[in-house]
Amino acid sequence: MEQRLTIITLGVTDLKKSIDFYENKFGWKRSDMSNDDIVFYQLNGIYLSLYPKDELAKDATVGSIGNGFNGFTMAHNARSEKEVDDLIKSFREKGVEIVKEPHKAFWGGYSSYIADPDGNLWEIAYNPYLKID
Amino acid sequence: MEQRLTIITLGVTDLKKSIDFYENKFGWKRSDMSNDDIVFYQLNGIYLSLYPKDELAKDATVGSIGNGFNGFTMAHNARSEKEVDDLIKSFREKGVEIVKEPHKAFWGGYSSYIADPDGNLWEIAYNPYLKID
Repeated sequence: MEQRLTIITLGVTDLKKSIDFYENKFGWKRSDMSNDDIVFYQLNGIYLSLYPKDELAKDATVGSIGNGFNGFTMAHNARSEKEVDDLIKSFREKGVEIVKEPHKAFWGGYSSYIADPDGNLWEIAYNPYLKID
Repeated sequence: MEQRLTIITLGVTDLKKSIDFYENKFGWKRSDMSNDDIVFYQLNGIYLSLYPKDELAKDATVGSIGNGFNGFTMAHNARSEKEVDDLIKSFREKGVEIVKEPHKAFWGGYSSYIADPDGNLWEIAYNPYLKID
């Protein structure tokens, strides 16, 4: 199978609340593929999509109940430590939950974590070894 | 914040088992950023990374316990319905869990789901409205 990931779909408990988070805290613009039931954000090469958790589970024919750590993180890499600090400052001002304050990481980077309304973790990081186009 | 996602990290319970899945069932090649503790696969514009779940939770300073539906799916879009069928046939032969057989979806596409060793769901789909480069 080709090394390709087309869409990450987050199953959300409150679509309006999640849309508010991604559009008003992150400042992202939705793609015109979006409709009242599902929202898409075009990122670098992939889409992030928001869809009600119950509906997502139903589509995959799995149970919708889940608790605790959901076992994955998404990382947004910034271009400098300052950009990480600035993003976290701005998120704090907007009332976003800061899960871990920016800190020097053992792997040589600079890292922090925030949570979206469903507790999905976004690492906001600077990695000097990874070039951002 | 720019509309960018750099890395998706899956917190896995058995790193060797997950590596076997992504390298021998999916046939993916790891990036040279990988080491004994963490593995990266370069995809279209982003990396998928595998990291022990306990370590990932520790890094994010959250509890590592989680059960049930983890609330997200990853989609790999193929270029045709036949390619979806061929991929699912090949996964079945390799012993991959087929969660949902390929079917015509209400949104006009053709969709199926498989699970990785931790139950992370991959939708294998064809979407006639979405161009794959």
